[in-house]
Amino acid sequence: MPWEKTFDVQETLEKAMNAFWARGYEATSVQDLVESTGLNRGSLYATYGDKHALFLAALRRYDRWLREELLQRIEADHGPRDAVRRLLLLFRAETARPGGSSGCFLTNTALELAPHDPQVRGVVATAQTAMEQWFARMISKGQAAGEIPEHVRPSEAARGLLATLIGLAVLARSRPEPPLVDDIVEDAMRRLE
Amino acid sequence: MPWEKTFDVQETLEKAMNAFWARGYEATSVQDLVESTGLNRGSLYATYGDKHALFLAALRRYDRWLREELLQRIEADHGPRDAVRRLLLLFRAETARPGGSSGCFLTNTALELAPHDPQVRGVVATAQTAMEQWFARMISKGQAAGEIPEHVRPSEAARGLLATLIGLAVLARSRPEPPLVDDIVEDAMRRLE
Repeated sequence: MPWEKTFDVQETLEKAMNAFWARGYEATSVQDLVESTGLNRGSLYATYGDKHALFLAALRRYDRWLREELLQRIEADHGPRDAVRRLLLLFRAETARPGGSSGCFLTNTALELAPHDPQVRGVVATAQTAMEQWFARMISKGQAAGEIPEHVRPSEAARGLLATLIGLAVLARSRPEPPLVDDIVEDAMRRLE
Repeated sequence: MPWEKTFDVQETLEKAMNAFWARGYEATSVQDLVESTGLNRGSLYATYGDKHALFLAALRRYDRWLREELLQRIEADHGPRDAVRRLLLLFRAETARPGGSSGCFLTNTALELAPHDPQVRGVVATAQTAMEQWFARMISKGQAAGEIPEHVRPSEAARGLLATLIGLAVLARSRPEPPLVDDIVEDAMRRLE
């Protein structure tokens, strides 16, 4: 039945995504991918092409499934100002994760592959631009609702918030300290006062 | 003559540092290190131990030579408020670099190795803490000089500026766009108004 094949492909992709997310492209061997997906080398190649194609598919899945859906859910469930805070607090829970946080797969990839790999850079830069636009939309909505003062410039503040979010994703991996995250989020929220 | 040996070791370390900085730990093979340093495998191992020890030495050299000296120089040459802006603008010139920016070696390493490697995490976290303290000192000095208003809390704003600086280092590699950097720096400087 076709839907069974589709389901397997997605589940395999998710397993590969988690492996690449935690360790990066170079440090994840084809043998690691065989072990984490439970598929043999031949099936992996037949379905996805090569390691690079599988990585790109995993990164696109993360972008659509985690990044895009998460932003939509936060926007649907919270007022604009609170939505910004919720997103920035995303990595706070990660600081307590046993084995450490995997951070943000897009940010990890921005450093490891984006400079040398135009296809990967395309996915990363598009995602970063979408996050920037999301922040700008929250600020505009917050201004329309009277939650955020008019003197805040949505496009500029959105870029500042993007840099802060990326900084938090890095610090979740190198200095997983809840008070550090809290201070950075409170400082960022002052932009919207 | 002993000083010749010392000079060679430092120069070799700098070449290895540049290789690791541009490509990361995993993607830099021992063969790459042989080519970039001009030393053979045997001499590299005899002088530095193994690839991991050479990486740690290169990271420490970057931390002392680039990070620490750069902060001292900026602090010596500029008033506190302007010093903050100069540091944040560091990655702006990088956006025009042919072949792309290598970003910040410490930030690249924070993502690639820090979560799984306590020795590396120690170097990275110590450097990030030192940058945070530098920002806090600039803010306190700026307040004493009447350049920065008293309502700014040095320790909290310093953490926000650290996250911004790290975000800029990532964006230099994935979205090297001067107007993006300018907006983020202007937005960050509003923290000090």
